[in-house]
Amino acid sequence: MTPKTAVILAAGLGTRMGGKPKGLLKVAGREILYRTIYLLQKNGVEGFVIVTNEKYAGLYREFIERHGFSAELVINPEPEKGNGHSLHLAGEHVSGKFILVMSDHVYGEEFVAEAVKGDGLIADRRPRWADVSEATKAKVKDGRVEDIGKSLREWDAVDTGFFVLNESIFEVTSELEQELNGDYALSEVMKRTRLPVTFVDGLPWTDVDTPSDLKRARKMLIKSAPKGTGDGFISRHLNRKVSTEISYLLAEKVTPNQMTAVTFAVGILSAVLTLISPPLAGITYQLSSILDGVDGELARAQLRASRLGGYIDSLLDRYVDGAFLALLAYSTLTESLWYLVALIALLGSVMVSYSTERFKGAFCRDAYKEVTALRKLPGKRDERIFLTMLFLLYPVETSIKALFLLLAIITNLRVAVTAYLISRKVSHPKTI
Amino acid sequence: MTPKTAVILAAGLGTRMGGKPKGLLKVAGREILYRTIYLLQKNGVEGFVIVTNEKYAGLYREFIERHGFSAELVINPEPEKGNGHSLHLAGEHVSGKFILVMSDHVYGEEFVAEAVKGDGLIADRRPRWADVSEATKAKVKDGRVEDIGKSLREWDAVDTGFFVLNESIFEVTSELEQELNGDYALSEVMKRTRLPVTFVDGLPWTDVDTPSDLKRARKMLIKSAPKGTGDGFISRHLNRKVSTEISYLLAEKVTPNQMTAVTFAVGILSAVLTLISPPLAGITYQLSSILDGVDGELARAQLRASRLGGYIDSLLDRYVDGAFLALLAYSTLTESLWYLVALIALLGSVMVSYSTERFKGAFCRDAYKEVTALRKLPGKRDERIFLTMLFLLYPVETSIKALFLLLAIITNLRVAVTAYLISRKVSHPKTI
Repeated sequence: MTPKTAVILAAGLGTRMGGKPKGLLKVAGREILYRTIYLLQKNGVEGFVIVTNEKYAGLYREFIERHGFSAELVINPEPEKGNGHSLHLAGEHVSGKFILVMSDHVYGEEFVAEAVKGDGLIADRRPRWADVSEATKAKVKDGRVEDIGKSLREWDAVDTGFFVLNESIFEVTSELEQELNGDYALSEVMKRTRLPVTFVDGLPWTDVDTPSDLKRARKMLIKSAPKGTGDGFISRHLNRKVSTEISYLLAEKVTPNQMTAVTFAVGILSAVLTLISPPLAGITYQLSSILDGVDGELARAQLRASRLGGYIDSLLDRYVDGAFLALLAYSTLTESLWYLVALIALLGSVMVSYSTERFKGAFCRDAYKEVTALRKLPGKRDERIFLTMLFLLYPVETSIKALFLLLAIITNLRVAVTAYLISRKVSHPKTI
Repeated sequence: MTPKTAVILAAGLGTRMGGKPKGLLKVAGREILYRTIYLLQKNGVEGFVIVTNEKYAGLYREFIERHGFSAELVINPEPEKGNGHSLHLAGEHVSGKFILVMSDHVYGEEFVAEAVKGDGLIADRRPRWADVSEATKAKVKDGRVEDIGKSLREWDAVDTGFFVLNESIFEVTSELEQELNGDYALSEVMKRTRLPVTFVDGLPWTDVDTPSDLKRARKMLIKSAPKGTGDGFISRHLNRKVSTEISYLLAEKVTPNQMTAVTFAVGILSAVLTLISPPLAGITYQLSSILDGVDGELARAQLRASRLGGYIDSLLDRYVDGAFLALLAYSTLTESLWYLVALIALLGSVMVSYSTERFKGAFCRDAYKEVTALRKLPGKRDERIFLTMLFLLYPVETSIKALFLLLAIITNLRVAVTAYLISRKVSHPKTI
């Protein structure tokens, strides 16, 4: 069971970030805290307790009201003391099991989904994004915190700033309050209780201390946004590498819907260019194929993914492909027989997508997840577009005819194999 | 809550049906009893008690084992006595609420779904399929059975042979056993208990007494099979009227998959005929459009509907349309510009289906149910095919060009309006 409450420590004065509260800095167009609360809510957390200082309380109150979050503010009047004191102050507002999380850490979807299921300190033995030299490290023995600190020589894992705790922790903070006059760090609490450790390794999370950390966090969100299961060979090895760089540059300024419109416009432009210069048209078409990944990447990084967005994007892709093939045929072919081949290639090109989408319509499941063999089948959109570009680089009549013939064969063969694989899978009663 | 047990009375000697147990007669390729048990299971009933006679016990036992039904047999050694006695014999095998149903009644899906929610006698004030002159009628007062019989002068509703009862009914049958020496009809029990009545009006059900009743039952199942929500104007007013007649003729002999194959073959034949005679091609295409309804009707009437069947049927429809337009263009057009129009018409023709199926893929819901305005939008497959046939009856160059232009406009406009309506609906947060 995921805890229903989360405590967020946001009392730090953030001296390296120009005095702005770090939780309210934006990464990929969203405040760090918006992101954390959104993802925790998605995983079942219902209420939030934000511990902040007097200086930032107004900003955080405004933030909570603007988003309509179910959160209460607790003021730490002595934010200069160690952050253990901030946790202690939250004690009156929580009961049972709860999550404790830092306001200056940026977490990815997959990380949060795993971390909420853990117990004690969530620690990462293979941190991919965090700056390890600046991070707090933990030495673990028998599944519990043995030692913890920034400058440990020997350590097992890095503190992710994410904890799953129980109210009994406040007995320990009460002791420490008395012994240390309220000035003690979370790490003291962890050592004293020998907190259990759960390893969540290699998933996206990082903390933000300096402006350059913000850029690293943005890159993390773009790169670790879950990819579409329908990505083909060209997409995995070329398009995604470029599109994530573009998404990184646009993440703070451009919305997914704007990007969908731009991509569609570039695609239609490429179709029109077939009338002027097939090589240029091919290159522009491939460019539109790269851009086609950006709207989805932005949507996931900005927490703006929507099924409607995916629906419209998918219709527009079909129209770009249709327009490209229709205008390429119109501008280069003369014989009826080759027009017949072009008509069949256009049909097949839409049917590749139809044959997997119609499966989803019938079974409410992703064809690529249910029938994994489909992933290896050639003929996906990214591959077809790359092939089209190659054939158009030195356009002679033969190469364009060969292209149409090849597309007509590849696409319709792929549809036939898809229907066969799906029939075989569905007839196997254990799975669907 | 739907009762978990159903008692089926199957002890009658069926003298008018050549001595075969009526429950094992087939309608649309399925035994009447298979149909009843299948539909009751679909609505939550788990166990069955079948009361039969010594003569038929072996046949019913074989039937139960063949289908693996969770049913027990109770033998009525005196089947010549009234059927109240058969109900009484089931008393030891049921407890609490249960369903009582006659083995010689054929019920449609919609009827069973409503009837299981009722209480007491399920009666029909507007019977559409049953032979009223032969039926048992009920006079109802204050929601209860006042009088019941085949020859009542005044009556309110017809007995559907379907009851939702409680074990307390067996106190009454015990009384009647003693008073009447075990020879009494169900109607006696109903009158004695003044059984509550639930009206389920106008839905498909009928009883089977004579061979001609079997045909009526078959017609009922074909005609009342729920129609696809995507039926267009031509489908509703022409194609369905013909296809249900064909389904009626084929219901006992042909499976849905066989019919899908035949329909696809006729569709491809129509495409090839464009090379020889456009008018003949158009007529054959319209014929394939009519046949296209038959597989679905057979599937529903034979309780053989499957999502895989719908998926394959849908892919094949797209290929028939694609092949028809591609070969029609090939055999009649010469200018590049008109080929461009044909390419756009073919694209639009697939996209009409894509735009609604892709919605289902994204939202797991039927676009026609969510956005009812889509039903009124012209340009569905049945309408396009009918239009194509009309334009090909007197094929001149101009009429074929006009056809492609019209299809290119109608289909793509329809896709644009579909996308608009869906976006508007989805952005309205209350509904999706």
